[in-house]
Amino acid sequence: MFVDGCPSANYPCSKGRTFSVFMSSTSVSPEPRSQIDDPSSLVARFGPDEPLMMDAGVPLTSWQIAYQTYGTLNADKSNAVLICHALTGDQHVANVSPVTGKPGWWTTMIGPGKPVDTDRFFVICANVIGGCMGTTGPASIDPATGQPYALDFPVVTIRDMVRAQAALIDRLGIQRLFCVVGGSMGGMQVLQWAASYPERVFAALPIATAARHSAQNIAFHEVGRQAIMADPDWRGGRYLAEGTRPSKGLAVARMGAHITYLSEMALHRKFGRNYQDRSAPTFSFDADFQIESYLRYQGLSFVERFDANSYLYVTRAMDYFDLAAEHGGSLARVFKGSATRFCVISFTSDWLFPTSDSRAIVHALNAAAASVGFVEVESDKGHDAFLLDEPEMFAAARGFIDAAARARGIS
Amino acid sequence: MFVDGCPSANYPCSKGRTFSVFMSSTSVSPEPRSQIDDPSSLVARFGPDEPLMMDAGVPLTSWQIAYQTYGTLNADKSNAVLICHALTGDQHVANVSPVTGKPGWWTTMIGPGKPVDTDRFFVICANVIGGCMGTTGPASIDPATGQPYALDFPVVTIRDMVRAQAALIDRLGIQRLFCVVGGSMGGMQVLQWAASYPERVFAALPIATAARHSAQNIAFHEVGRQAIMADPDWRGGRYLAEGTRPSKGLAVARMGAHITYLSEMALHRKFGRNYQDRSAPTFSFDADFQIESYLRYQGLSFVERFDANSYLYVTRAMDYFDLAAEHGGSLARVFKGSATRFCVISFTSDWLFPTSDSRAIVHALNAAAASVGFVEVESDKGHDAFLLDEPEMFAAARGFIDAAARARGIS
Repeated sequence: MFVDGCPSANYPCSKGRTFSVFMSSTSVSPEPRSQIDDPSSLVARFGPDEPLMMDAGVPLTSWQIAYQTYGTLNADKSNAVLICHALTGDQHVANVSPVTGKPGWWTTMIGPGKPVDTDRFFVICANVIGGCMGTTGPASIDPATGQPYALDFPVVTIRDMVRAQAALIDRLGIQRLFCVVGGSMGGMQVLQWAASYPERVFAALPIATAARHSAQNIAFHEVGRQAIMADPDWRGGRYLAEGTRPSKGLAVARMGAHITYLSEMALHRKFGRNYQDRSAPTFSFDADFQIESYLRYQGLSFVERFDANSYLYVTRAMDYFDLAAEHGGSLARVFKGSATRFCVISFTSDWLFPTSDSRAIVHALNAAAASVGFVEVESDKGHDAFLLDEPEMFAAARGFIDAAARARGIS
Repeated sequence: MFVDGCPSANYPCSKGRTFSVFMSSTSVSPEPRSQIDDPSSLVARFGPDEPLMMDAGVPLTSWQIAYQTYGTLNADKSNAVLICHALTGDQHVANVSPVTGKPGWWTTMIGPGKPVDTDRFFVICANVIGGCMGTTGPASIDPATGQPYALDFPVVTIRDMVRAQAALIDRLGIQRLFCVVGGSMGGMQVLQWAASYPERVFAALPIATAARHSAQNIAFHEVGRQAIMADPDWRGGRYLAEGTRPSKGLAVARMGAHITYLSEMALHRKFGRNYQDRSAPTFSFDADFQIESYLRYQGLSFVERFDANSYLYVTRAMDYFDLAAEHGGSLARVFKGSATRFCVISFTSDWLFPTSDSRAIVHALNAAAASVGFVEVESDKGHDAFLLDEPEMFAAARGFIDAAARARGIS
């Protein structure tokens, strides 16, 4: 997801820089382990007596979940909002990232006076299981070997992510979340929360998401994974132990994925066929076009902040997501009898999670007689719109959350 | 383009095969040189006194163009049809491929009784400059060094491709082509023919194409190129001289590109979330889903028949294509006064070269007062539709060609 510091809406990032030569280093130092083991955030640690049961059929023992909170939990613990992050997001939703030094990835949505108002709500955001920002994942040390898990880490599902978050919420002494909010993969977690723990979710706001990952989206993810695994520095996943990093493969994966986060219209409007720092083609394989330079920048900056194996695991979790499959293929059955109130938001130009995916959720909720509102936001920004300045989305989210807060008796 | 033997409409290819392990060899023998230097087709050779002037500003000396013909040239040489191939196509449009042993890539369109009827027309199809099937390209031997050109080959444009074809047409003693036909990059060549040599093109049939490559398409190409160049076996382009092949990078490039040739609907209909030879997920990075297995097969089969540097050059030619730019930004001016009759065809589900691209061509032709027909074919097969069984496309092509043949006095 487009959460690092080069917002889609602008393009100042690579001005004055050229990227004629793609990454030339083939062996670099392993990632500093600080964010993986001892992140710059709160951490809840779970010992051998509190294993996380994984859908893969194995328990994860001695695991931890890294999270941030904003605002104050009220006396009856009724004002907690859980934010679920997307593929490459993290817990730093509304504070400066300790890795990039850039603002949190959803400060448009979360903060004082924002739709998720931290003056009213106690906001929690946790790094997902399988991630690389302090929650246990493939880069974490396997207590059985003293080495990073690498591919010995069990394959993760969206349900595993939510199960880990539920353990955190238990630890925080919160019985019922006021609201669960997220876009893209975050929206998958919102839906999974409402499915796995309906009594613990008062309101749910899934944005730009789907109840199952499409064949096309699986295909794009598979190309990214193959790009990583084709990099000889991946070393069968053991690159951290061997002191390499599959940076080129990960950068290619990110470049390809990044295209899918934008609309054709957004790319045309922002870049068109404009040249980068030149007035004519060079008749070479340099980044003649701004769009090429921009994509190379996206690839390069991404590898500085993300772990390649985590990319494999988290994309796999999205691919496996098919909420109805757990309920005999009926999405309506998933939500039958649910007292949760839902608001579903999609964007007209989002071709990765098109409105038809959101409509399928809404139809199922209608069939289950659940409370649901639906807003399709007119936008030409593509999937990334949910992270950007979209007043119609903010208005819909604010209206839904305010009404739910009144119903919940939150002042 | 999707021209190898696993047609989109079926999916028998990888049945019984599994692709759990992606290509593991990192060093393989160089491509057999037979198709590059001495292809299984006709070849027109041009000596040092007949250089091909390239848009890059350098002459290509001692070059050759490999081609196939079908049918018989009539006495007044008025019945010649030139077929222009797409990105990864070749001259074997209507005969069994000497490389894959599979049928020609457009036997639905070209042959006895087909829309391009080889009983009536003399059909020519040539491998493009920059290709790897016998026309001079980066894998060819540079006479100056005795080694493959690699990146010393000049960057190629669509206009260069057409200029080379015109030299071939001259060699064949043909003054005026009855019709030029092509889809995707082939359609770009059709448009370039009509722009560069209007008096030599009686009729033009550009299909699923654009007068300029979009930012999104440049972006997808750039990811593919970076995947190739990130492969250490690419060796700065000198892999043929060094006895390696960047197979993994090229396969990743092909996998990513292949997704763009299909529609989301086609992927859903053909694969959905179906598992490959299993009934449940394996919780691993194996190809659990049919779409994953299919894409891996596409990548693997492609590297057996295509040269990685050619992929760089031919994608670059498409990216540089902007027909109006040569004429002060006005596409109408390109075709001003043209006597060529045009038929433009697009497909409703083609998101790589959407109908809006075709409409822009039609609008320019209208503004230039040229003769033009336009057909948008209803299809859910995406960009690849032009290579598949699309009766509406065949009917439109047949009607256009038959009418043009009457006007040209071809029996």
